[in-house]
Amino acid sequence: MSEAAARRPLRVATVGYAFMGRAHSQGWRGAPRFFDLPRDPVMQVLVGRSPERAAHAADTLGWAEVETDWRRVVERDDIDLIDICTPGDTHAAIATAALEAGKHVLVEKPMANTLAEAEQMAAAAAAAAERGVLSMVGFTYRRVPAVSLARQLVAEGRIGEVRQVRCQYLQDWLADESTPGSWRTDKEKAGSGALGDIGAHIVDLTHFITGQRVAGVSGRLDTLVTERPVAESFAGLSGKGGTEREPVTVDDVALFTGELAGGAPAIFEATRFAWGRKNAMRIEVNGSAGALAFDFEDMNVLNYYDAREPARTGGFRRIIVTEADHPYIEGWWPPGHGLGYEHGFVHQVVDLVRAIDAGEQPTPSFDDGLAVQRVLDAVERSAGRRSEFTEIPEHGRPSDVSATAPAGHDVPAAAGQS
Amino acid sequence: MSEAAARRPLRVATVGYAFMGRAHSQGWRGAPRFFDLPRDPVMQVLVGRSPERAAHAADTLGWAEVETDWRRVVERDDIDLIDICTPGDTHAAIATAALEAGKHVLVEKPMANTLAEAEQMAAAAAAAAERGVLSMVGFTYRRVPAVSLARQLVAEGRIGEVRQVRCQYLQDWLADESTPGSWRTDKEKAGSGALGDIGAHIVDLTHFITGQRVAGVSGRLDTLVTERPVAESFAGLSGKGGTEREPVTVDDVALFTGELAGGAPAIFEATRFAWGRKNAMRIEVNGSAGALAFDFEDMNVLNYYDAREPARTGGFRRIIVTEADHPYIEGWWPPGHGLGYEHGFVHQVVDLVRAIDAGEQPTPSFDDGLAVQRVLDAVERSAGRRSEFTEIPEHGRPSDVSATAPAGHDVPAAAGQS
Amino acid sequence: MSEAAARRPLRVATVGYAFMGRAHSQGWRGAPRFFDLPRDPVMQVLVGRSPERAAHAADTLGWAEVETDWRRVVERDDIDLIDICTPGDTHAAIATAALEAGKHVLVEKPMANTLAEAEQMAAAAAAAAERGVLSMVGFTYRRVPAVSLARQLVAEGRIGEVRQVRCQYLQDWLADESTPGSWRTDKEKAGSGALGDIGAHIVDLTHFITGQRVAGVSGRLDTLVTERPVAESFAGLSGKGGTEREPVTVDDVALFTGELAGGAPAIFEATRFAWGRKNAMRIEVNGSAGALAFDFEDMNVLNYYDAREPARTGGFRRIIVTEADHPYIEGWWPPGHGLGYEHGFVHQVVDLVRAIDAGEQPTPSFDDGLAVQRVLDAVERSAGRRSEFTEIPEHGRPSDVSATAPAGHDVPAAAGQS
Amino acid sequence: MSEAAARRPLRVATVGYAFMGRAHSQGWRGAPRFFDLPRDPVMQVLVGRSPERAAHAADTLGWAEVETDWRRVVERDDIDLIDICTPGDTHAAIATAALEAGKHVLVEKPMANTLAEAEQMAAAAAAAAERGVLSMVGFTYRRVPAVSLARQLVAEGRIGEVRQVRCQYLQDWLADESTPGSWRTDKEKAGSGALGDIGAHIVDLTHFITGQRVAGVSGRLDTLVTERPVAESFAGLSGKGGTEREPVTVDDVALFTGELAGGAPAIFEATRFAWGRKNAMRIEVNGSAGALAFDFEDMNVLNYYDAREPARTGGFRRIIVTEADHPYIEGWWPPGHGLGYEHGFVHQVVDLVRAIDAGEQPTPSFDDGLAVQRVLDAVERSAGRRSEFTEIPEHGRPSDVSATAPAGHDVPAAAGQS
Repeated sequence: MSEAAARRPLRVATVGYAFMGRAHSQGWRGAPRFFDLPRDPVMQVLVGRSPERAAHAADTLGWAEVETDWRRVVERDDIDLIDICTPGDTHAAIATAALEAGKHVLVEKPMANTLAEAEQMAAAAAAAAERGVLSMVGFTYRRVPAVSLARQLVAEGRIGEVRQVRCQYLQDWLADESTPGSWRTDKEKAGSGALGDIGAHIVDLTHFITGQRVAGVSGRLDTLVTERPVAESFAGLSGKGGTEREPVTVDDVALFTGELAGGAPAIFEATRFAWGRKNAMRIEVNGSAGALAFDFEDMNVLNYYDAREPARTGGFRRIIVTEADHPYIEGWWPPGHGLGYEHGFVHQVVDLVRAIDAGEQPTPSFDDGLAVQRVLDAVERSAGRRSEFTEIPEHGRPSDVSATAPAGHDVPAAAGQS
Repeated sequence: MSEAAARRPLRVATVGYAFMGRAHSQGWRGAPRFFDLPRDPVMQVLVGRSPERAAHAADTLGWAEVETDWRRVVERDDIDLIDICTPGDTHAAIATAALEAGKHVLVEKPMANTLAEAEQMAAAAAAAAERGVLSMVGFTYRRVPAVSLARQLVAEGRIGEVRQVRCQYLQDWLADESTPGSWRTDKEKAGSGALGDIGAHIVDLTHFITGQRVAGVSGRLDTLVTERPVAESFAGLSGKGGTEREPVTVDDVALFTGELAGGAPAIFEATRFAWGRKNAMRIEVNGSAGALAFDFEDMNVLNYYDAREPARTGGFRRIIVTEADHPYIEGWWPPGHGLGYEHGFVHQVVDLVRAIDAGEQPTPSFDDGLAVQRVLDAVERSAGRRSEFTEIPEHGRPSDVSATAPAGHDVPAAAGQS
Repeated sequence: MSEAAARRPLRVATVGYAFMGRAHSQGWRGAPRFFDLPRDPVMQVLVGRSPERAAHAADTLGWAEVETDWRRVVERDDIDLIDICTPGDTHAAIATAALEAGKHVLVEKPMANTLAEAEQMAAAAAAAAERGVLSMVGFTYRRVPAVSLARQLVAEGRIGEVRQVRCQYLQDWLADESTPGSWRTDKEKAGSGALGDIGAHIVDLTHFITGQRVAGVSGRLDTLVTERPVAESFAGLSGKGGTEREPVTVDDVALFTGELAGGAPAIFEATRFAWGRKNAMRIEVNGSAGALAFDFEDMNVLNYYDAREPARTGGFRRIIVTEADHPYIEGWWPPGHGLGYEHGFVHQVVDLVRAIDAGEQPTPSFDDGLAVQRVLDAVERSAGRRSEFTEIPEHGRPSDVSATAPAGHDVPAAAGQS
Repeated sequence: MSEAAARRPLRVATVGYAFMGRAHSQGWRGAPRFFDLPRDPVMQVLVGRSPERAAHAADTLGWAEVETDWRRVVERDDIDLIDICTPGDTHAAIATAALEAGKHVLVEKPMANTLAEAEQMAAAAAAAAERGVLSMVGFTYRRVPAVSLARQLVAEGRIGEVRQVRCQYLQDWLADESTPGSWRTDKEKAGSGALGDIGAHIVDLTHFITGQRVAGVSGRLDTLVTERPVAESFAGLSGKGGTEREPVTVDDVALFTGELAGGAPAIFEATRFAWGRKNAMRIEVNGSAGALAFDFEDMNVLNYYDAREPARTGGFRRIIVTEADHPYIEGWWPPGHGLGYEHGFVHQVVDLVRAIDAGEQPTPSFDDGLAVQRVLDAVERSAGRRSEFTEIPEHGRPSDVSATAPAGHDVPAAAGQS
């Protein structure tokens, strides 16, 4: 009997098989091939409403069976974990039911479309955790090695105390006015536009890397193109439509400033109108003793400025984050043989399976997901009140930062990611 | 008799000889060497309070005479133009007196330390212009060739309608807590901190490149290090002090969002705490048909994305702005032989002398300078009211944009810079 | 019965499971998950000399069975393709036997350690092709989307006629003198050093992208550190050894100049001593109407200069090669969600399986592999004769370029990669 | 009496007023304005054959008088230094006569068009130096602050022992076939093409930065476009001609490999056909303990990799070479306010005037210039002998490196540039 077979299985069901479903499937397939996992993920069931399309997806993506109703899966005894990749308006119902049924849960971001749902989910997760049932939100960009390294360096004090944060998430897929509307431009289905879709990521990265949460914001939301052609059929991001038009009911651009729990000012932009920027998720953190800068368009690189170095030989170091002692790299290739977008999904599975096996809270927790939702909600409220500064009094601490750390000081509970 | 001698002289007096005085002197000396000017600048008088130090400066910088009181120079018949390089709190008095005495005026930015003074100066400039006496504000970054090219491309419609603007001005010279205080950290003398010193530049660049003014803002100002060592003697930017400490009464960081006259959202950051960023003045403008991006740390380059290009071969073009048909380059070197910081001061003199000779309003005018002051003032007021959005109803139009252009459409009065 | 099951299987055996075996396995596993393949790869047998280690590898990498002698696999009727990932000195024997036994063959580069072996393999491949048995060399860097796009643009005439090529392959893993020796620093086992290991890649890329082969070279080979510690046990690239030392019998640095079949001069450097360059495989091709530049350290980007654009707005375009109509991207993610090193191995399987199904010669063929070996051999001979220029009269044409194309003109037989 | 007037004057005559004459004039004008010089340069005479054009140039560039025959100036008692900016074929005659007449000499590169002339000039310079008459060659790129810093860091041992050098000098101004011929494409007048014009610079930089000379080369020279339109009138670099054509008798591309005195391999490319590269003079030096990389297209930056830094946080540092303690920066602006091409000419004057005042040999000396000519000559000879490796036995040592330093060890005589 092979070694792997000897490990206890972790039987997984996934709900949804679109963009995120494909990425999550790659995570489940890849993790045991490249990393030594304490449990053996079994890709048991894929859930989709259409039996034919679900069967085709299961076959392509590598799932053993198909179900058409997620409730059936929640009831099955042979499922240990439910991985939720459906649109945000369904997350609360599925996650809550799954946690109550004793299934571990991985939910793709945004955790929910409304703050009320997110609060309900976080409460359910806290209750489940008491019973050893664990949950995690899919902010996979935390698991880009360069981002994990950034978090480690902040936690190690390599940039001193956090002084300022600047973030941008720039895309351009709506910059063309003739791009048709979709569920993503419809507030009913998507909850919000650039703010929730991509702004959520930079808020989460700020929480993760700095070890502090956003404590107040002043925001504005703009819709630059207020009407779009109706897609003749669902055509995803790239389809072009006919002459009929539909309103755009979400924000195209979200701009906000704010402050972290420790008082550091921060500035954020999320836009889908930045021609030429395809997925430029950027964060720069200035500390009292240095700075870190990351851009997803150069995802295998972390730029680090060490202010203790004399100015004569100082400069941003372009660290190529592919060394054996960099986060997650032990599973992959020699130096310089970079990773891609989907590797974050593999790392997510690795961390999740290890946390479940150890009986420890995986991060980001539902509480971390809720914290992001609170920031987005505060931005929306501020935007509705002429950008008035809006506090988030219940901001709390990131789940991986010790409760005994004084505000503004970053003392992670554990030794950092990876 | 030589050709140059045959040109009518333009007799100049300069007030001040510190950092900006040195840069302006380089402009006056260099312009006739590299460009064909319609009038011959004569560097007649340098004004400084200390006769010895003024004499030394005049000798080093190339001025023929010295005066110790600017009022004397204003009265002299043999002076055509007064170039004001003193701290901002003296600008209004000198400029107003000079204009009234029929001298053309070049005033270094910030135009003034208060909005009231700026308004008074703009009124004086308007009155003087009626009598053919002209004035200009020294926003020299407009005259970096890559910035001028950006303005030309916007005016030519190469990025379509302006949709969004993002600006950063990042420096790090106050990031070290042990850097002593100076007049720049004292609100009395400097008026404001990062906001007025460097934030002013990105506001002016936004006005210049987009052809639209900022029409409203929501801002916050932070002072990250509230006390600094007292400099033992005046030691400029780099000196280190003793054990005595003084309060910092200006902002270290200014963050603001806003909108242009045409409705485009914009986001701005000015900071002196961004370790590793030495003079990263950045502006990116997104239009309906493309984008432009500039970073002063790569000052001979303009990045341009043409959205009409098929995506398969589209990408930001790194235009090295040193070709013969690029703005101002006809006076300089072959392609690839880049310019530096001080060249903007040469170009400023070129444009100013040509405008005076032609009897036309040079740009940026005092009205353009006032427009920047209004934005800074609105940021301060917003910051004092929990970042509430603050309109600038009197924003008007850039002086080089035709009054008949509909708001949000960029139809420059003339054919663009250079 | 599922759709995939209905496809005819392609039963694969792999020999070797080290670095390249892991990468090839990822290719076989991933290809059917992301691409629509005409045949269904079955990962049947992994061959390794140690039964225990082979079993562990098979389990981890996803192979159904294990064999300990590659000859057994060659004899089996249920194997359609043999994928050779062993060191270069074993390639000729395995590949020749497999082809003779009617198995398709994929062989990792370098195709062989000696020119004689490579010639024998190419002859065997040509004979096998007559019988419909196909073969391919694993130059996977051809299948980085940005590299494939470069080849397409050259073939489409987007840079005009090829005028010059410059290539670098810079690594630093031997720059530290205390790094121990390994089979890679032993001429017996590795054949050559930087020349064959990484120089081979830039020669193949030159052939691929330009559509022309190198027709003559002048070279020099240097060994910068002539002795290294003996690794106490085999420790791969990164281990540190004891006090015993062994000679380095291969080149650390290979420098060569040369010319393409059409006469264009070319320059090449391969080194393992370029501190800070982790895997900087770079190629720049200058044509009569433009240029292309690629650097693997920024692998999702192709830089393209279109000389037909007026100089005023011309510049290298940073094309982010992640658009739906870019090579191979249809199988992956939305724009800006970049790929990594291993994706080339997936694309290799996709192209190989499609070619086998279509009964067409996959590329690069063994003849293409032989062409690279001829260049490396000529470099070694030139280096042994004081860098005297050494012709390669039998250079021929790349297998994907039509035999009727005049030398120096790039008319690919097919429409370009993907 | 002013302080400057009290300094002893250094009366200068310049021969030539084209591109280089303009740049040298800027050096003479600017140096005393920005730096504290021990002697006061007086721009006394400009020499040009056409009295009218010379007078216009003198007026524009700031020279007091005009002569039409350089011999007249050599005879004048009131001239201390002759600055030679004419084409290379006139250098030997003017420089030799000037040195014999007791004038200090600054000669623009290339020092001469033939090796014989260069040898004669070096001999004349050595003889003159005995009498306190000094001479210098105008390799101004040495005086780009980032290049000077590179030299300092090598001399300080910051990259350990020099192991490898790679250089490129890429331009594109002949890539367009319709660009007319000029004196630069005529071997009679220019001596050589890319090799002597721009290849000379990267050879000198190698000597300067490494402290070692090139000791042998293997080269090839290619002329890619062998005929060009005749310029209708002299039109400089950018003019377009008619239908008549003239042969190109110089190299368009020079490729060479070689080795330094200490044995380190080196690789060089000079080309005028690299579309999109405007003035990409690049040098990268790998040492046993680090690396340095410079690109003139980013001229205010030096990239430095310190191999003593742990790999986890190591990376090329982008040093912005504008700090107060960087070479030459004390004369200029605050950090981040970068310099341009012409500043090297100012620094050249500063160093030359200081050396003359101190009675010390300025660098690069005529011996340094001769060393470059020897390398170029060896490249040409090698290219004529099928790239056979060609030794340069008389290579010697850079004039700023102590004669007691063992070959391959870099012990500068003085403390490094600036």
